[in-house]
Amino acid sequence: MATLIRGGTVVTAEHSFRADVLCADGRIQAVGGKIDMPAGTQVVDAGGQLVMPGGIDPHTHMELPFMGTTASEDFYSGTAAAFAGGTTMIIDFVIPDPQEPLMAAYKKWRGWAEKAAGDYSFHVAVTWWDESVHRDMGTLTREHGVNSFKHFMAYKGAIMAEDEVLVNSFSRARELGAICTVHAENGELVFHLQQQLLKAGITGPEGHPLSRPPEVEGEAANRAIRIAEVLGVPLYVVHNSCRQSLEAITRARNEGQRVFGEVLAGHLLIDDSVYRNPDWNTAAAYVMSPPFRAKEHQKHLWRGLQSGNLQTTATDHCCFCAPQKAAGRTDFTKIPNGTGGVEDRMAVLWHHGVGKGRLTPNEFVRVTSTNAAQIFNIYPRKGSVSVGADADLVVWDPAASRTISAKTHHQQIDFNIFEGMTVQGIATHTISQGNVVWADGQLNAVRGAGRYIDRPTFAPYYDAIRRQADARRPRAVPRAAAE
Amino acid sequence: MATLIRGGTVVTAEHSFRADVLCADGRIQAVGGKIDMPAGTQVVDAGGQLVMPGGIDPHTHMELPFMGTTASEDFYSGTAAAFAGGTTMIIDFVIPDPQEPLMAAYKKWRGWAEKAAGDYSFHVAVTWWDESVHRDMGTLTREHGVNSFKHFMAYKGAIMAEDEVLVNSFSRARELGAICTVHAENGELVFHLQQQLLKAGITGPEGHPLSRPPEVEGEAANRAIRIAEVLGVPLYVVHNSCRQSLEAITRARNEGQRVFGEVLAGHLLIDDSVYRNPDWNTAAAYVMSPPFRAKEHQKHLWRGLQSGNLQTTATDHCCFCAPQKAAGRTDFTKIPNGTGGVEDRMAVLWHHGVGKGRLTPNEFVRVTSTNAAQIFNIYPRKGSVSVGADADLVVWDPAASRTISAKTHHQQIDFNIFEGMTVQGIATHTISQGNVVWADGQLNAVRGAGRYIDRPTFAPYYDAIRRQADARRPRAVPRAAAE
Amino acid sequence: MATLIRGGTVVTAEHSFRADVLCADGRIQAVGGKIDMPAGTQVVDAGGQLVMPGGIDPHTHMELPFMGTTASEDFYSGTAAAFAGGTTMIIDFVIPDPQEPLMAAYKKWRGWAEKAAGDYSFHVAVTWWDESVHRDMGTLTREHGVNSFKHFMAYKGAIMAEDEVLVNSFSRARELGAICTVHAENGELVFHLQQQLLKAGITGPEGHPLSRPPEVEGEAANRAIRIAEVLGVPLYVVHNSCRQSLEAITRARNEGQRVFGEVLAGHLLIDDSVYRNPDWNTAAAYVMSPPFRAKEHQKHLWRGLQSGNLQTTATDHCCFCAPQKAAGRTDFTKIPNGTGGVEDRMAVLWHHGVGKGRLTPNEFVRVTSTNAAQIFNIYPRKGSVSVGADADLVVWDPAASRTISAKTHHQQIDFNIFEGMTVQGIATHTISQGNVVWADGQLNAVRGAGRYIDRPTFAPYYDAIRRQADARRPRAVPRAAAE
Amino acid sequence: MATLIRGGTVVTAEHSFRADVLCADGRIQAVGGKIDMPAGTQVVDAGGQLVMPGGIDPHTHMELPFMGTTASEDFYSGTAAAFAGGTTMIIDFVIPDPQEPLMAAYKKWRGWAEKAAGDYSFHVAVTWWDESVHRDMGTLTREHGVNSFKHFMAYKGAIMAEDEVLVNSFSRARELGAICTVHAENGELVFHLQQQLLKAGITGPEGHPLSRPPEVEGEAANRAIRIAEVLGVPLYVVHNSCRQSLEAITRARNEGQRVFGEVLAGHLLIDDSVYRNPDWNTAAAYVMSPPFRAKEHQKHLWRGLQSGNLQTTATDHCCFCAPQKAAGRTDFTKIPNGTGGVEDRMAVLWHHGVGKGRLTPNEFVRVTSTNAAQIFNIYPRKGSVSVGADADLVVWDPAASRTISAKTHHQQIDFNIFEGMTVQGIATHTISQGNVVWADGQLNAVRGAGRYIDRPTFAPYYDAIRRQADARRPRAVPRAAAE
Repeated sequence: MATLIRGGTVVTAEHSFRADVLCADGRIQAVGGKIDMPAGTQVVDAGGQLVMPGGIDPHTHMELPFMGTTASEDFYSGTAAAFAGGTTMIIDFVIPDPQEPLMAAYKKWRGWAEKAAGDYSFHVAVTWWDESVHRDMGTLTREHGVNSFKHFMAYKGAIMAEDEVLVNSFSRARELGAICTVHAENGELVFHLQQQLLKAGITGPEGHPLSRPPEVEGEAANRAIRIAEVLGVPLYVVHNSCRQSLEAITRARNEGQRVFGEVLAGHLLIDDSVYRNPDWNTAAAYVMSPPFRAKEHQKHLWRGLQSGNLQTTATDHCCFCAPQKAAGRTDFTKIPNGTGGVEDRMAVLWHHGVGKGRLTPNEFVRVTSTNAAQIFNIYPRKGSVSVGADADLVVWDPAASRTISAKTHHQQIDFNIFEGMTVQGIATHTISQGNVVWADGQLNAVRGAGRYIDRPTFAPYYDAIRRQADARRPRAVPRAAAE
Repeated sequence: MATLIRGGTVVTAEHSFRADVLCADGRIQAVGGKIDMPAGTQVVDAGGQLVMPGGIDPHTHMELPFMGTTASEDFYSGTAAAFAGGTTMIIDFVIPDPQEPLMAAYKKWRGWAEKAAGDYSFHVAVTWWDESVHRDMGTLTREHGVNSFKHFMAYKGAIMAEDEVLVNSFSRARELGAICTVHAENGELVFHLQQQLLKAGITGPEGHPLSRPPEVEGEAANRAIRIAEVLGVPLYVVHNSCRQSLEAITRARNEGQRVFGEVLAGHLLIDDSVYRNPDWNTAAAYVMSPPFRAKEHQKHLWRGLQSGNLQTTATDHCCFCAPQKAAGRTDFTKIPNGTGGVEDRMAVLWHHGVGKGRLTPNEFVRVTSTNAAQIFNIYPRKGSVSVGADADLVVWDPAASRTISAKTHHQQIDFNIFEGMTVQGIATHTISQGNVVWADGQLNAVRGAGRYIDRPTFAPYYDAIRRQADARRPRAVPRAAAE
Repeated sequence: MATLIRGGTVVTAEHSFRADVLCADGRIQAVGGKIDMPAGTQVVDAGGQLVMPGGIDPHTHMELPFMGTTASEDFYSGTAAAFAGGTTMIIDFVIPDPQEPLMAAYKKWRGWAEKAAGDYSFHVAVTWWDESVHRDMGTLTREHGVNSFKHFMAYKGAIMAEDEVLVNSFSRARELGAICTVHAENGELVFHLQQQLLKAGITGPEGHPLSRPPEVEGEAANRAIRIAEVLGVPLYVVHNSCRQSLEAITRARNEGQRVFGEVLAGHLLIDDSVYRNPDWNTAAAYVMSPPFRAKEHQKHLWRGLQSGNLQTTATDHCCFCAPQKAAGRTDFTKIPNGTGGVEDRMAVLWHHGVGKGRLTPNEFVRVTSTNAAQIFNIYPRKGSVSVGADADLVVWDPAASRTISAKTHHQQIDFNIFEGMTVQGIATHTISQGNVVWADGQLNAVRGAGRYIDRPTFAPYYDAIRRQADARRPRAVPRAAAE
Repeated sequence: MATLIRGGTVVTAEHSFRADVLCADGRIQAVGGKIDMPAGTQVVDAGGQLVMPGGIDPHTHMELPFMGTTASEDFYSGTAAAFAGGTTMIIDFVIPDPQEPLMAAYKKWRGWAEKAAGDYSFHVAVTWWDESVHRDMGTLTREHGVNSFKHFMAYKGAIMAEDEVLVNSFSRARELGAICTVHAENGELVFHLQQQLLKAGITGPEGHPLSRPPEVEGEAANRAIRIAEVLGVPLYVVHNSCRQSLEAITRARNEGQRVFGEVLAGHLLIDDSVYRNPDWNTAAAYVMSPPFRAKEHQKHLWRGLQSGNLQTTATDHCCFCAPQKAAGRTDFTKIPNGTGGVEDRMAVLWHHGVGKGRLTPNEFVRVTSTNAAQIFNIYPRKGSVSVGADADLVVWDPAASRTISAKTHHQQIDFNIFEGMTVQGIATHTISQGNVVWADGQLNAVRGAGRYIDRPTFAPYYDAIRRQADARRPRAVPRAAAE
């Protein structure tokens, strides 16, 4: 059945214009001022509203096994909740344990994700190194549509990648035309500070941010960036939470390096005072890494989005409920790290971004959808409103408002970090593969309807990187033989 | 008659894809894989080639009366030469003398431009201030499609705008929704250094760069940017030639300010050693302001384009021939400032930008066309390959090459600053308003075919600036009356 | 009579060591572990205390005629109050009206200062330009011990120096071996904002900081620095109050330029919330320029002192009492700008600087005394504890504390911006010219005992500047005569 | 026997003044205008010359066992050669092999150094970690006058300290009041690049700089700085060779961190073209780490000295002769890293620093002597011209010149990286412990006369660091017990 979105203003990364949008067979069939409606077409009235590419959340962890428990949100519930907020695609993570073969982990996650209601893809983490990892990276890129590899610079004793792993993996990614991504925190320092704090009797959630100060993140971001620079590979730094890592990215970009940065909706709006909440459960609910920061960092992060030094917004959606968080009741280092947000990202970004004049509506589209599609090389299939693109769209009412609450959200978590925030600008309709999956408060998600999206290697920026490298290829100096 | 560009790869600011492009009635009628050809359609074979938005040169001075003479290139010859290089639109400047009414000057320039072969528009310079200027700025924006005002911070004793003029004009532009542009050089310092150099017996062209060191440009750029910041008006800094002004722009952008920067093709590739050429005529031919700089600045300017801190490329095309330059034979301050380039900009940018891996083809489109269209608010009419847009296109052969020379160029000037440079990547066909005006070395420009292009005020970024300002509106403190 | 300071720890800019200090004939006669005491020597017991060079406040305005009134503190009362806080020398300002001959103004100020109790010197302001100013600058440097000239970039319509004056004066100072100083605020912008605010009905003291935002200061600082760079003259930027001007200085210093920066004690500790005090008198009492800033700037200013990018601390001591301030009751632009501080600078700097670990005691000496002496070329006569130096010393008790209040201070002003602040670390004895002028709360200032201190031109850093300039002297290109 | 240096101008870090200097019993006994000469006093005529603190080279490696060979310069010959250039003290390095007890290594080096002619001290390297290292660091600081520990971030598979070692050692140094120092190069990247280059057939010395690009150094410097910031320990970054590491230091210093930077004389003046010398022996002679850099870095390093962001100059004196270098004939990674310079540092610094206006003579004293003494806490015993200080002095003739050559130098190495450079400004007399050890080209060094110099912990800046940390001590949040 075809769907016609009628009477709205289409907003893309580039501009805004009055147009109807016709969807059929999962794709956009027409975009224009006056579209003839085939018989049997479902009509979405977008009068006075905006029609934008569906949101892409490039950083989620559905049903992740982590820190002795498993994230409460699964691929079905999570992609459904995303629909309710206007997000139509997620990029999740395959995270092998050290020594676990990458292919085995990849297959496990593909299995879990079968239930997803919306489209999805996977970054694959490189948490250790040997010849099999080298080989599996090749297989994943060539045969399984993976074009990005993740590296955790924190979590010592678990999934932390030391410099040796980074150097090997980045170098391999370069051969394959993949992009590298990093969680940037210096894991040695975090470990050291955790021990010091526990020894000093600081065992509550307030110890969490103290064990991961911004310098720890800035250092790691800079390190990964410089390794990427030397090896000539594009880099994407996930969840920048502070001035320090933003500055590392900004320095590199100002020098012409192809580095990309992501920021989480939460880090833009929530500060570290939450960890000193006298209620342990509340404080623990905010525990995630990197932690929320002193308020002054928020100004810098917004500026990062405005200047284009940060390109994407995400959530690191990784839900743990109070009983799970309780594992760290006497030791903050044991509180499962993570919280929700996939449902609220678009609305809080619009309200605080567009509403307050920090971003234009077109820039909003870029940072919630288009840039992610371009960086991860699925544009214009995703991230655009154009003929032939996947019909993943959101109809946005900039005048309507709602108040965020765990009581009413669709996410499988008992807490909402934006609890009580009233936002103006909400998704009235979400269209996934041409189907209306969210309409005026009604969720019509279909279990298993989501598809795995292949992402090809050698994104357009890759060719430029290689040309530059070619121009600097080292040459030997001819010399007479040793006498 | 319709024109079908067949078999090419369309390259836009966003992505690249195989598609034919059908033009008729001056507009793009269709973009797609298989386009049915109406009877009588002219076909341009773009097999193996790229189809891009025609170039926009946002900074030219055709037939400018300046320094006692008049630029040798007129609106017809200049827009025709632009066609030969793939550029289909220019934005020129109306420059009133001090005390000359803006409307009078505007009408004069409109008259001169009637002969143009390609589309054009005008920035209008504010070189003095009184109530009539305030009023005429309103008339120009509301009735004549002007949305940008230019300010010269140099040329003391002639058209230099002091801070008082800048503050008044920027403030007025803010009310009108116009963008401010500046030629950033501290005119007092230039004047002082000129006198010192002449006194020291340095009268040749080598005195020109010595009288305008990069600090002079960086200072003025920073000053204009901060004035714009305080007054809340968007700013466009023309012809950034050095690290110093780029850094001023970069600082502001990193802080979230809406500042844009332009760079000339010449400044990216030519250094200041030209002024020490023992042949006076050669040295004088390169005299323009800001001057060519020490080689190290070029690296920074390229990085500016790569990072997005500089958005546009231009030429400051303003031709003076040897007999005109001779006016400064014994005093470099009397050498008419300016040279050509409108024909060569696209090719040198492609060769040194895309060819060397500094820019992707999509980024090339941005910096030669799309960004200018968006900043000056004529997108997507210009700067895009989309249905309904003006059919201003260039067919680009990335494999073909040519050698630049004054002997073969179409510009009305006896010198070419890129003389002898062989570039790979050239315009094989240029389409203006749907007509093939340049095809395989044959120029078919029609005198007077160019149209004046209205540019509406309140570009999309303006709304964001105003929202931000509203959020910071000053409030009075209520106090008891004085006792 | 000789004075022996016994048992203290001498703290200099370089190091700390146990030593007695013997003073006689106005000079330090001996510094050492065991000093034989001449008969009749007065002993100051410095046991457990520190002996440091007396403070130098390089920025005061005693009995200044300004904004229609005259500062309430005169040279006698001001230098006496300074003694009570450990400061033994001030550098005040001669400020000619536009068109007033510099020599005439200089003589007027010399007359007023005859009553001073402590040593003093004068910066001379250049507020206008003609040949007589050029000549008088020569006379002042060669015959009257002036080596620094001040320029106000604000106060349009009064003493503001436009770029033309700056360029002429800086250039002249270069010939004479003098240092230039600037009050950095863009006067055009201030004037414009004042008019806008008044028009918008904001007439109270809260309008003061709104009319002089930090960008206005940062712009002017950068402008003066770049003019100084181009002309090759050392520059001293007075009363940096914000991140923006500090960054301008830092950039220049990182590039090797000889630029110096001063910060006022008040700007390090007081924020702009004071201007929103509901009591008009209180709010008005804080009106000075540049205004107090948002709290975040303080962190930057402290870092400026720590990093050495700011070298000196001052007060801009310029007292106006409530009845004087009342002139601006209905128009904040008419509130006389200025407040006190000469008595409290050392103590607040010690408490918040050394006490909180921001500065070492040696660094404290640098920023309160030695650096000013070196920059203004009176070291080691002032700013050192060495044989032959002027016996201007302070005995400092790091353990004692006092609470600052207008009720108890010695300054001729009815308000104290540090009211109620308890500081640990106070001057127990102050020695001026070898005389104990302040001892345990007792002031023994002698009217007229202060001396005018000549400051020679061509400070040591000047030679380096000139050598560098010589290395870059422009050369003409030899060319055949024009044919 | 006493020695009187008569008629010179004393130049210290602070100022310059005419004075005689009397030395006896190894110390300075008097400094003043007219000094009575005891009977039997030796007179050094310093008329028209400068008298400065003897140079301190804080970075040498005499008779170092390294890369399979031993440095050709021993403690006697090296300290003697230093005398010939005006340097009177060195700080060398104890470098334990991994697993070698620190105390054992320390004693070995102390034994080797017994033969030194001039005073010396030792940094001790931490190349591995266990409880014994923790304990020995305590012993060395408390009982053996060591206050600085060195960490090599490069040389993988040998002495490289990974983050875990850095964190443990820095943390321990903090407890002990010691300063940490680092050789900043990312060893993993160097190793990777070396393998790549060899694989690509680049085996000659030109591979050396290619395997250690500036980014590798900048990364490591930033990492060490941020670790030091988090742990609250002062840091000294040795041999900064490039813009990148200087910027890391500058950023930290601008934020108020106590970070110090050293630059080698060679890096200020020699560029990386030397590695492409067609003569293998010549190219190999320049192999040291970090390598010489592209010319543009030199400008930045000089600016680092001028701005005070770099405080010290050194040589990394570590001599290997041609037969030793030949070990890497077919594999550049096997060329022993190091070259000489201890004899020439002062002269090249003066000529290119003071002579060209980059530094004042006082600044020269700071960067060649005083700053090192203050940072390593032996001031004013070393680095000053003051009564009671060690009589280590140099008499400097700013008018005399010499040409540097391996043929005439006193260093035990067959090559001189400054070969053929004529410098103006030379040491005419060097005084060590009050003895004239170099006079007009005659070396009077005495084997074994040098003394080991204890360096106390808790330098003055340490107290400030600790006060700051105290102000930020983390606190636990009181919470009700878990229900």
